[in-house]
Amino acid sequence: MSLLKVNLGRRSYDIQIEPGCITDLPEAVRKIHKGNDIAVISDKTVTGYYGQKVLDLLGSAGFHVTMHTVSDGEDSKSFSILQQLWGELLEINLKRDGMVIALGGGVIGDLAGFVASTFLRGIPFVQVPTTLLAQVDSSVGGKVGINHPLGKNLIGNFYQPRFVCIDPEVLTTLDNRDMWAGMAEVVKYGLIWDESFYKFLEKNLENLIELKDWNDVSRMLSVCCKIKAEVVQQDEREGGLRRILNFGHTIGHAIEAVTGYKVYHHGEAVVYGMSFACWVSMKEGFITKSTFERIQQLFKRFIVPPLSEKVQLTDLLDKIKIDKKQSHSGLHVILLESIGKTKDQTVQDLSEWTKGWLDYARASQ
Amino acid sequence: MSLLKVNLGRRSYDIQIEPGCITDLPEAVRKIHKGNDIAVISDKTVTGYYGQKVLDLLGSAGFHVTMHTVSDGEDSKSFSILQQLWGELLEINLKRDGMVIALGGGVIGDLAGFVASTFLRGIPFVQVPTTLLAQVDSSVGGKVGINHPLGKNLIGNFYQPRFVCIDPEVLTTLDNRDMWAGMAEVVKYGLIWDESFYKFLEKNLENLIELKDWNDVSRMLSVCCKIKAEVVQQDEREGGLRRILNFGHTIGHAIEAVTGYKVYHHGEAVVYGMSFACWVSMKEGFITKSTFERIQQLFKRFIVPPLSEKVQLTDLLDKIKIDKKQSHSGLHVILLESIGKTKDQTVQDLSEWTKGWLDYARASQ
Repeated sequence: MSLLKVNLGRRSYDIQIEPGCITDLPEAVRKIHKGNDIAVISDKTVTGYYGQKVLDLLGSAGFHVTMHTVSDGEDSKSFSILQQLWGELLEINLKRDGMVIALGGGVIGDLAGFVASTFLRGIPFVQVPTTLLAQVDSSVGGKVGINHPLGKNLIGNFYQPRFVCIDPEVLTTLDNRDMWAGMAEVVKYGLIWDESFYKFLEKNLENLIELKDWNDVSRMLSVCCKIKAEVVQQDEREGGLRRILNFGHTIGHAIEAVTGYKVYHHGEAVVYGMSFACWVSMKEGFITKSTFERIQQLFKRFIVPPLSEKVQLTDLLDKIKIDKKQSHSGLHVILLESIGKTKDQTVQDLSEWTKGWLDYARASQ
Repeated sequence: MSLLKVNLGRRSYDIQIEPGCITDLPEAVRKIHKGNDIAVISDKTVTGYYGQKVLDLLGSAGFHVTMHTVSDGEDSKSFSILQQLWGELLEINLKRDGMVIALGGGVIGDLAGFVASTFLRGIPFVQVPTTLLAQVDSSVGGKVGINHPLGKNLIGNFYQPRFVCIDPEVLTTLDNRDMWAGMAEVVKYGLIWDESFYKFLEKNLENLIELKDWNDVSRMLSVCCKIKAEVVQQDEREGGLRRILNFGHTIGHAIEAVTGYKVYHHGEAVVYGMSFACWVSMKEGFITKSTFERIQQLFKRFIVPPLSEKVQLTDLLDKIKIDKKQSHSGLHVILLESIGKTKDQTVQDLSEWTKGWLDYARASQ
């Protein structure tokens, strides 16, 4: 069994990464959980693929399991769905010895984790991420929450899962677009932390997307989770180091927002956001032009929608203003010093950089 | 300056207990908080008494302060008010370097603390409790939350304040009924932890209610907060020891619920709940009849509404079922072994004890 530990004192937990390991879920849950009642929260698509399987597995092991299915997509990270789920868990009489399992992608993990963190002042939860993005990013580290009409992820918590079950085989049912979106976060880890991993991605990008070799896929997932665990261990509540994980996310979030979350998946917007951060890193003289072009070559292999006409300077800057990471002392922007090494810059105003990059990005389409 | 420390590692904080100490609030906040923006959450009554004073104090010290006032009473611990406050804090552009101050009683502390714990994944908050109940109980220990239509405090968090400012002088504007309700929690500390403190209360009960001597009042507040801090330090998330603080609360909560939260203040219901727990302790032979009668003598000095006709056995038992502290392995009931010492009993069924105590309580009215 391939286990990775996230060391956070009394909030430590294991991540299992192994093809087919979803079958071991009941055993893993039994090890960490005395109670018998489990509420599985999932969305319609994932329930269709894996709902019955998970119900049968846990049911056969003697757990009392209920399924709570919400609509697919970001709109489920809402106050009304949160309220609905609180009500459902009370109606089935879930107690402090109950547990929530998040079965799905990033939306489900964030939503179910926030429900668990606030239900009866917090009950245990387990992440079973079913998208590449959730497996390498959102299922590890304890960021949970919902959206507010004024912006994404503005309401939430830091609340660690008790266990993360990452089965690469569930990616076989993921569509290609979501694989590419998840791959953006994978490449992020190479850029901010590990040049040799970045080289591995340069070599194997398309093969990984096509799940050609389970060993390579498992290696990719393990490296990402190891880096994420290392960062979270050093800075659980994003007071410093953890900000490097926002590489590409300042502009990425803004691009998602100005296009009403309808044009780009999160990871697709992050590809543009990372392009922005690399361009600025070059303009400021932190990385060379050839390093910048090497990275751009990798980004060009990504299949993402082109830069929309709706992505305009003023709107982007407006959206950045409401971004939660800003404090009044300025905005932290994560840049690169080299492939594998970041630089945390605090700036008051992003307009020059954003204008320059937009011109560059439009010209190079 | 009289400071008491709650030792919870990186979540440690000070409690200041001193007549007039609300004047020192800006200085205390400056010590723990780098940011400049403060959102004060309060209710109408407290805003009327102390809102302008707190605004002026913090404003003169250079903070940028906004006031967020909700209606008085338990109904403000609702989804809709939570949503409203999240929106208000976003609209004033509060960032992660902002802070929430809870200025009010238990309702405001629970609500404002929950808002702070979930806003941008958690921003710092400070408690300025203005009722006796909040000063000795709810402002210390980090329990925050709101109610659900199916029950009180079912949604919430453990989230510690950064500082608690307890100014006994604010109690001069508290009405007599709320003083007695708070005194129930004060007596609880004597019963569960400290016999000499219990004796002090027997001697000074009415004088304390009338705030006759600031030294005695401050001593009372300090002893309660010390006990609460000690318990919370040992068991922050209520896995064991902290349950003793629920002494009197199982039946207390049920009495509040069956009377629709309209007849009794929380502390008044807790007087009945403690009477229940003491009666059971005597019936089970843990305390003597004379100890029981000694305690009943103290309870008889309390001014509380009589036991309502609405308090009936079946309804009480129904409400206990939904009580969040229950797990499927049974219900923890805190009993007494002596004045100052508790006994944690796990029971499956409370009907015999509840029936017996109801008969006793009705007969002794």
